[in-house]
Amino acid sequence: MSEKINILAYIQVILCNTSHSGNIGAAARAMKTMGITNLTLVAPAVLPDSQSMALASNANDVLENVKIVTTLDEALCDTVLAFAMTARRRQFNQNLMTPKQCVSEIFTTIQAHQKVALVFGSERSGLTQTQIEKCNRLVTIPGNHDYSSLNLAAAVQILCYEIYANYDDSLIHLKTQSQMATLKDNQSVLEHLNIILSKIDFYLNKNRDTIMRRLQNIIYKSNLERMEVDFLRGILHKIEEKLK
Amino acid sequence: MSEKINILAYIQVILCNTSHSGNIGAAARAMKTMGITNLTLVAPAVLPDSQSMALASNANDVLENVKIVTTLDEALCDTVLAFAMTARRRQFNQNLMTPKQCVSEIFTTIQAHQKVALVFGSERSGLTQTQIEKCNRLVTIPGNHDYSSLNLAAAVQILCYEIYANYDDSLIHLKTQSQMATLKDNQSVLEHLNIILSKIDFYLNKNRDTIMRRLQNIIYKSNLERMEVDFLRGILHKIEEKLK
Repeated sequence: MSEKINILAYIQVILCNTSHSGNIGAAARAMKTMGITNLTLVAPAVLPDSQSMALASNANDVLENVKIVTTLDEALCDTVLAFAMTARRRQFNQNLMTPKQCVSEIFTTIQAHQKVALVFGSERSGLTQTQIEKCNRLVTIPGNHDYSSLNLAAAVQILCYEIYANYDDSLIHLKTQSQMATLKDNQSVLEHLNIILSKIDFYLNKNRDTIMRRLQNIIYKSNLERMEVDFLRGILHKIEEKLK
Repeated sequence: MSEKINILAYIQVILCNTSHSGNIGAAARAMKTMGITNLTLVAPAVLPDSQSMALASNANDVLENVKIVTTLDEALCDTVLAFAMTARRRQFNQNLMTPKQCVSEIFTTIQAHQKVALVFGSERSGLTQTQIEKCNRLVTIPGNHDYSSLNLAAAVQILCYEIYANYDDSLIHLKTQSQMATLKDNQSVLEHLNIILSKIDFYLNKNRDTIMRRLQNIIYKSNLERMEVDFLRGILHKIEEKLK
């Protein structure tokens, strides 16, 4: 995890000409949920204030370390890869990418310890054409063509999520450790079922192979753990005892 | 596009026990940006109001068509695939998935015109264990382990984005068509098992709830088709007949 965070430190979110201080806080929160903490404001219309802090919801450290500059050039000075976000059709948009298409290049860059910027425009009108042209990539978030009302923090959230989620899909920290059943374990359940189906005359006028294949298909789909095999066999054993 | 939207109509977002009306509006907005418009509220602490409308920002149609029910069972009645969202470690979580891992199954289901639910808990404490157990899948959004402060609308946004953005990548044309069992079908298998376990005295000195939960976990993992439900119930019926 610390390695992951470490590499994400080469990513910077840049908000240009933001109008509402609440949006700065909400963006800080969205970033931090995905382990991205470097925030730069370019010529903000408002400075971070108590409303930013309220909406940052414990991402105050992101706000406390915010960089504020007057031009996008300053913000991008040591960046090698700058993604301009747009929700609208733009000129010179041959390189328009989706967030999913950006991810590979972002990781190649930050793993080489070089800096990446995600650049967002003002709430009302997005980035200016001049700002877009200072970036070397153009990104858009796919969505409902008839209602493209993604707010600033939501756009930041999606882009940061896409980066984080692609880095390492592992859910280890939430998973219970468990031991999967072997194929032999699964077969033991099936053989036990076979014995019971014989005893209850289930195969009368039926094709045994087809029935066993259907049961095997269900068992295999369920990815049994070893403990579950024991549990099921316990039930089967008891059923067997209780048959006429 | 209209085809895309059309199929997304088989997806329902379910918010359980929501406390703040603003969050209902923000969730409606997040959904609509990704073309998902069916919203159900289960036992909301507040009803949609002017603050919801304000935060919905032109997604008012989603709020106007909202369904309000008192139990999650009602909301899920005709659903075949229900994803419970969690940010915490849970019991019986072997099937824990990321949003990216859910997508393929979601598309297989909605393209067969069967219903999918995305189920979110209350802002403060998420879904209850009982609510989670009514769903057949468990999903978590990967994020910063040290700061998992995703708000409700942000979680809705990410899940809906992942679905929308993956639509075109779907492998539908390669999949076999089959009719999945509904949650109600699965419950019918469990109830039948429950009857048999009672008859064979399997519950003696054991905890019935724990046993049923373990069985439910196995059944849900196995993604039963409707035909398999009939097949299993046929076996159970025959076993029942043959018990002493």
